Amino acid sequence: MVTYQPSARTRVTRLPKRAVYDAAQVHAILDEGFLCHIGFTVDEQPYVIPTGYVRASEKLYIHGSAASRMLRTLDQGIQVCVTVTLVDGFVLARSSFHHSVNYRSVVVLGTARLVLDREEKIDALRRFTNHIVPDRWDEARQPTDPELKATSVLVLPMEEVSAKVRTGPPIDDEEDYDIPIWAGVVPIHMRAGEPIPDDRLSPAADGFDIKRLTRFS
Amino acid sequence: MVTYQPSARTRVTRLPKRAVYDAAQVHAILDEGFLCHIGFTVDEQPYVIPTGYVRASEKLYIHGSAASRMLRTLDQGIQVCVTVTLVDGFVLARSSFHHSVNYRSVVVLGTARLVLDREEKIDALRRFTNHIVPDRWDEARQPTDPELKATSVLVLPMEEVSAKVRTGPPIDDEEDYDIPIWAGVVPIHMRAGEPIPDDRLSPAADGFDIKRLTRFS
Repeated sequence: MVTYQPSARTRVTRLPKRAVYDAAQVHAILDEGFLCHIGFTVDEQPYVIPTGYVRASEKLYIHGSAASRMLRTLDQGIQVCVTVTLVDGFVLARSSFHHSVNYRSVVVLGTARLVLDREEKIDALRRFTNHIVPDRWDEARQPTDPELKATSVLVLPMEEVSAKVRTGPPIDDEEDYDIPIWAGVVPIHMRAGEPIPDDRLSPAADGFDIKRLTRFS
Repeated sequence: MVTYQPSARTRVTRLPKRAVYDAAQVHAILDEGFLCHIGFTVDEQPYVIPTGYVRASEKLYIHGSAASRMLRTLDQGIQVCVTVTLVDGFVLARSSFHHSVNYRSVVVLGTARLVLDREEKIDALRRFTNHIVPDRWDEARQPTDPELKATSVLVLPMEEVSAKVRTGPPIDDEEDYDIPIWAGVVPIHMRAGEPIPDDRLSPAADGFDIKRLTRFS
């Protein structure tokens, strides 16, 4: 797949020049993020819940345990919107109106279903863990059957997908460029700090190198 | 107000020990964040859109321009869920099952309405700007009437509110503490990088000190 076809629901209507349907760019955004906000509707009330996710080819696996309200209604799958947003910088313009944020976001609409197959669930959990800390899954104790049962994983096919991206400097009105205030972009990054070892760390354990968190170091 | 009363819809049902209804803690989370995800439902499809917000007393002001689909349906207000999530760290346990994330999130349910009053709208825009860069509003060129008309601001009363917080080390099963792998918390922070001045910066402009972004420096 090279591009996603915008549907009436995923076509970007506001600031359409920021729209991205290119699959490689969408994948890159999803692979850089780790936190999504999943929206669903119960009794006409929308709910938006933060949770972890990982992409596998053209599927999103979503850590479902956070969404207990949703899961009660999930027998036949549930209509969801999964949104991932990366903030790249604050855009300071000469006019208050043109202040903005550089960001990359992806929206996936569709029907999420519980992953029932044991091997697919284990594979998704392995991907969640290694998506944050590469190779962590093989270091840690593997899940028992009761732990697997206590964990819910949702799968959402990436069929209705769009992305929106703002990059670059402020775009001011021509007559404002002479205003003598600082204007430009202040980049924003998520960074890992000094690891805090557990009080009960095994004396045989090695330290933790934050360089393993490649996106955050 | 000291605490929010949980409604049937905001009572935290999964891991209720993580629930927070204390207004001071909720305010602190909202005042540290700047990006929300707003959920609304159109034709039974939920949508989740990232946008800016700022708290003013017991109201949330939400930058509405991002949500053009929503605004078309907004005549009488619209049922929304506004969620703000701060990620504080990755929690590495001995077992894959007990891996977690330290986070603070707030969920506000209710009916959002367009801000129609001119002074209230200007006040909200001033708050948006100064919430990211203190004192920036007074430095920048103020909005014209057409710019004000082109900007949508929503207001949502903070009546149905809950927060969820995870802090601290991994909680492993007793028999796993001897496993000789590193366990603990890797803190995660949003940090400002070196400002990138606009190519057309006025020669009379001062530099930009990222210490002004107190939460990100």
